[in-house]
Amino acid sequence: MEVDYTTTGSKAVVVLSGGLDSTVLAYFMRNAGMYTHAVSFDYGQRHVKELTLAAVTCKKLGMKHTIVNLTDLKPVLESALTDPRMNIPEGHYAADNMKATVVPNRNAIMLAIAYGVAVSDHAVMVGTAVHAGDHFIYPDCRPGFINALQVAFALGNEGFQEPALELYTPFIGLSKADIVRIGAAANVPFADTWSCYVGGSIHCGACGTCCERYEAFALAGVSDPTYYRADPREYLTKV
Amino acid sequence: MEVDYTTTGSKAVVVLSGGLDSTVLAYFMRNAGMYTHAVSFDYGQRHVKELTLAAVTCKKLGMKHTIVNLTDLKPVLESALTDPRMNIPEGHYAADNMKATVVPNRNAIMLAIAYGVAVSDHAVMVGTAVHAGDHFIYPDCRPGFINALQVAFALGNEGFQEPALELYTPFIGLSKADIVRIGAAANVPFADTWSCYVGGSIHCGACGTCCERYEAFALAGVSDPTYYRADPREYLTKV
Repeated sequence: MEVDYTTTGSKAVVVLSGGLDSTVLAYFMRNAGMYTHAVSFDYGQRHVKELTLAAVTCKKLGMKHTIVNLTDLKPVLESALTDPRMNIPEGHYAADNMKATVVPNRNAIMLAIAYGVAVSDHAVMVGTAVHAGDHFIYPDCRPGFINALQVAFALGNEGFQEPALELYTPFIGLSKADIVRIGAAANVPFADTWSCYVGGSIHCGACGTCCERYEAFALAGVSDPTYYRADPREYLTKV
Repeated sequence: MEVDYTTTGSKAVVVLSGGLDSTVLAYFMRNAGMYTHAVSFDYGQRHVKELTLAAVTCKKLGMKHTIVNLTDLKPVLESALTDPRMNIPEGHYAADNMKATVVPNRNAIMLAIAYGVAVSDHAVMVGTAVHAGDHFIYPDCRPGFINALQVAFALGNEGFQEPALELYTPFIGLSKADIVRIGAAANVPFADTWSCYVGGSIHCGACGTCCERYEAFALAGVSDPTYYRADPREYLTKV
């Protein structure tokens, strides 16, 4: 990067999972001139490979990166994402069985920590890549929740936020296909992002997030660099 | 304990620091017949001794105990409680210099995690021992914050809370002296609780929390079993 963001931009924190959405958001914020500190979480997710890719993105963008270890939560938060005894549902992402992938209060936990980091950093915003495609399954990705959390956090840090902090959600009304288009326009290296919930070293092509990823590239008309083990088209009609 | 709470009481989660207030709350909830799961946090606090005492309380009460390691946050959350280069202020607790002991968004972080655990446990409430004496210094102990957080968490877990969860704050309008009185009436072994923010193996007697502890016992007219290295009366007038 040619610009020295440490002296020019506003400070910001971004919640970076290493998935497609948050990686595009990291590029988006960086390109907007923000000096960004990325916070990632290891909560015992099977798809821990996403954290390696988050680190790759931070290195490429010259961003500070903090990975917070929350693996103590694995035995006490119930979810198919962390429990190897539960199956990751296959097929279309909007299907009701994807609810097994909810991690209780996950976004509240991540945003509470990222917000605390932002207060310490004297940052102006905390970016999170929640988008409209998440709303159906995940209540903690909906605008009402984000707005209420922002009110609570502002009250909980009254007198200690300098300047006032914003929960920044530029994708909240957009689809995943829209995010792919934004990423393509910004030359985001999509191969540096991970979506598959099953884990392993290549995308399975059958789980809900693989199907969602495949579909988003197709709808956006953007070339998908992902190698899928199975053909997502065979699973997209499965509900 | 003679009662088997695992089969009789409602399930509840309690945020237990090992300090005086939350230990009294744990006894209070247990005595009310709740089957309680205590959640404690290691965030790199100097006074990590409180966690040992939290474990003692859980063992005595036969409560499930989860200690969540958040020490990754120590370098990124700015506070005198975790940074050995900063001084813990001495003297009266309500003094303005106690603001150095604020950990940004601490209660939001702890309550977000405890709430997620409670959703997984199908519990009916999350207890936290915030009290009126905290309000002056800590914005994340005030009723407005707790109420706003409850609204946000309810929205963030819509459809996944069964039953609906309450943030339970029975001490929020009470003073620390009131809590000492409640604890004395319930025969809480106060020697199992820790207040000093400086760390070490005995209470320093000079820091704000030692002064506050000493004063609460005196105001309540309850015998204080604490051994203080220095006499808190010499520091109580210091602001």
